[in-house]
Amino acid sequence: MNGAESLVKTLVSQGVDICFANPGTSEMHFLKALDNPAMRSVLCLFEGVATGAADGFFRMKGTPASTLLHLGPGLANGLANIHNARKAGSGMVNIVGDHATNHLKYDAPLASDLDGLARPLSHWVRRADGPHTIAADAARAVTAARPGRIATLILPGDASWGEAGEPAPCPVESPAFKAPPSARVEALARVLKKPEGPVLVILGGRACRGEALDLAGKLAAATGCRLATQFFSARIERGAGRVPLERIPYFVAPALEFLKDFRHIVTVETDEPVAFFSYPDCPSLLKPESCAVHGLAEKDEDGAAALAMLLDLLHARKTVARKQPRDKTVAPTGKLDPTSIALALAAALPENAIVVDESLTTGRNSMGLTAGAAPHDMIQNMGGSIGFSTPVATGAALACPERRVICMTGDGSAMYTIQALWTQAREGLNVTTIIFANRAYEILRTEYANMGFGALGPRASAMIDIDKPTIDWVAMAKSMGVPALRVAGVEDFHRGLTKSCAEPGPMLIEVCL
Amino acid sequence: MNGAESLVKTLVSQGVDICFANPGTSEMHFLKALDNPAMRSVLCLFEGVATGAADGFFRMKGTPASTLLHLGPGLANGLANIHNARKAGSGMVNIVGDHATNHLKYDAPLASDLDGLARPLSHWVRRADGPHTIAADAARAVTAARPGRIATLILPGDASWGEAGEPAPCPVESPAFKAPPSARVEALARVLKKPEGPVLVILGGRACRGEALDLAGKLAAATGCRLATQFFSARIERGAGRVPLERIPYFVAPALEFLKDFRHIVTVETDEPVAFFSYPDCPSLLKPESCAVHGLAEKDEDGAAALAMLLDLLHARKTVARKQPRDKTVAPTGKLDPTSIALALAAALPENAIVVDESLTTGRNSMGLTAGAAPHDMIQNMGGSIGFSTPVATGAALACPERRVICMTGDGSAMYTIQALWTQAREGLNVTTIIFANRAYEILRTEYANMGFGALGPRASAMIDIDKPTIDWVAMAKSMGVPALRVAGVEDFHRGLTKSCAEPGPMLIEVCL
Repeated sequence: MNGAESLVKTLVSQGVDICFANPGTSEMHFLKALDNPAMRSVLCLFEGVATGAADGFFRMKGTPASTLLHLGPGLANGLANIHNARKAGSGMVNIVGDHATNHLKYDAPLASDLDGLARPLSHWVRRADGPHTIAADAARAVTAARPGRIATLILPGDASWGEAGEPAPCPVESPAFKAPPSARVEALARVLKKPEGPVLVILGGRACRGEALDLAGKLAAATGCRLATQFFSARIERGAGRVPLERIPYFVAPALEFLKDFRHIVTVETDEPVAFFSYPDCPSLLKPESCAVHGLAEKDEDGAAALAMLLDLLHARKTVARKQPRDKTVAPTGKLDPTSIALALAAALPENAIVVDESLTTGRNSMGLTAGAAPHDMIQNMGGSIGFSTPVATGAALACPERRVICMTGDGSAMYTIQALWTQAREGLNVTTIIFANRAYEILRTEYANMGFGALGPRASAMIDIDKPTIDWVAMAKSMGVPALRVAGVEDFHRGLTKSCAEPGPMLIEVCL
Repeated sequence: MNGAESLVKTLVSQGVDICFANPGTSEMHFLKALDNPAMRSVLCLFEGVATGAADGFFRMKGTPASTLLHLGPGLANGLANIHNARKAGSGMVNIVGDHATNHLKYDAPLASDLDGLARPLSHWVRRADGPHTIAADAARAVTAARPGRIATLILPGDASWGEAGEPAPCPVESPAFKAPPSARVEALARVLKKPEGPVLVILGGRACRGEALDLAGKLAAATGCRLATQFFSARIERGAGRVPLERIPYFVAPALEFLKDFRHIVTVETDEPVAFFSYPDCPSLLKPESCAVHGLAEKDEDGAAALAMLLDLLHARKTVARKQPRDKTVAPTGKLDPTSIALALAAALPENAIVVDESLTTGRNSMGLTAGAAPHDMIQNMGGSIGFSTPVATGAALACPERRVICMTGDGSAMYTIQALWTQAREGLNVTTIIFANRAYEILRTEYANMGFGALGPRASAMIDIDKPTIDWVAMAKSMGVPALRVAGVEDFHRGLTKSCAEPGPMLIEVCL
């Protein structure tokens, strides 16, 4: 077999059996190797969709997908969502085709410093030496990606088309997240037995779900500490029956207010809270000066094990955690506004939905209203690069075909990677995309005011309003084969959402604000 | 004034008076500074549109535009079209907002190795030290960009909002493209007086138009050499009344055939022809072994001056060049195919149109049929990263509002940066976008066959065909406010094209193949 076949076979044997692809000429041998029926290939019409889908896939499956990208510029188009994935701790294996080694020196049109482009956002980069070592390279790439890291394997044409022989079997190494050193946990246990004031435990990473979340609930019940997440989390299990988590506010002033009385912050698989952006005369760190920060588990440690150790030291392992009761939300009526939208969502949300949230202005501050909805997963943007939600929803739907994905996004955000709709239609994915069409980068109007500038002048306004022309989202969805409807009242919104959750395949709802 | 105001004022005083912007929170002060009425701001809904538009602007104006991008991921989204611009020798000044300096250490969500992302594709990168030096930095960036280079200025929040004082006036330094050393030209003159066989002169860069093109025509008339361009050129002046240029074919076999009899190749502002991609058992260099290559002018030298020196040495300055006669093309009838499409284009092309060509399969081999059309400029993709044409057409239309821009693209290519349509509608630009809708990455089917694989299997086919679902381009255009029509016959195509050229504003024509 040739190098490309050896590579695909090795990826599959390492458990990477899906490839989000945007191929070009230099990947023809890889394309042929994708005829391997054990690898599912999903075509994306823009590379940012491929890398975002790999992020969404990892968030739900916990194992890396692969992407197929075309030389330096193809990788470049995927970088923004690689950035988001990196910040979320989502692993992926990027296969980037390159010219054959002896062609590089001619500086052909598509030649660029591909290695230089890969390095800033990848944890692991390797340029394949040739067909015989490609299987070992692929196995190493998957091992690098598995704990939630970005691995980029550059595949020159000659490594792809040369004779590779049968790949040697490589062991599959599961990632091991270590428990923290016991001295650290013991020190924290001593503090929590007699804290000098209120304690906030901030959960991040894998600690926002499953066993870790339950253990955190026990800790709260046993010690009276409060539980929160950062404003953005990679994936939270929430809703009825789950341990409820507060959310540290986004803007600096309310975040300072939220944190001002705590004397201890305990972080689990996350860092202490910092401002998303810097502002003149505003602090970057959000905790009060008198507050001590205790790192219980680092991002690459096992938060669940750490919480279990802590509970044992506090003799609280058997405490009963408080769980979120089910709110029987009645579908709201009347005007569309952030509150009624959140209530409609709470009422319509099916059991086990996956909510991907990129609604910067509309959804952002009302998500508390869905806390008692049916149990669901919430996925948010950890890297801040907008255009994350439609691709991530695509990958999440492929990871969990039996679950409904609700993708909430602003009209400004959706335009970055709108090509994801086409892949959703092609693959018949159960994704409901909700476009909050306020016809503006509305968040920027708030940020402009936050800078103390007051109202925008007409020229600055023209850089924020996206109302001329108005984007027709129903036509946009239709153009890519996704059924769509437009709603201007909350009853229609609720009805549309409910309908979309009951029918297989994608749908888009334009919410006119 | 603050740093952002000082920066915008300096850009304007340096002749950079247009900004293709996709701002975010870290650019709020720059946004406010854009209230300066001397700077035209054009909002783009994706960063690849902004950088591609800057490329198109430079190709037509010869002076750099600025872009406004949002931190590392915003720059990343613009990189593919920066790559294309770089390969085309198009200068631009990228202003990339970043967190304030003292916020960087907290690794906030949008923090990344921004400098590392900027370096691989920029000729000049600088991180602003602070508000007082920003004017000098801006002037240096424009100076770096002016000869056709990529300048990237990273603007931390504090450099933007801090007090800068009045910017010191900076001299505007015009780029000087030097004439080649006379010894080099003399050596070539000796060869051309007695060449050992046929001579091909390949023109690139600024030598494909204006005075250089006329001088090349004289050289051909005086010496019997043939004149050609590479398959892709940044901008060619062609059509009736211009010196006609041949085109070296794209694929390796016909390119070898085209070049096989030449004993001398003379390059002017370009390099010797190389294969676009590498293929197993195919050469990278396209000239025959017996052919000598003579570099008359490097890419950063003055090709026109070089040709004038050469003509003087050959006593041929007054030779009369052959000019392309006007073909009176009759609008074709019948089926849509590459030939009838090219003939319809030739018949409909208005005087002084700008044709941006990214039609990989449909338009590629039939452009010879428009050689005798009304005089026009032809712009092609020098970097090979697809998704170049709709943004470049946008920038070209802003550079030349009185001229019609015809943007020819495949359906696969158009999807990468389709957001450009919205900016065209917003600004009322005279752009006709022609989508050749063959429902496939058709070029890849050819390339797959070129690899010796024969017909595609069903799985590989599914990575090349984009027919499920079919993209509805009329709905797509409508969604972004661009009028559109769909044509299935060549008469309708010709009629639609003629109509679009007669009416102001953008239009899209979906050509169903």
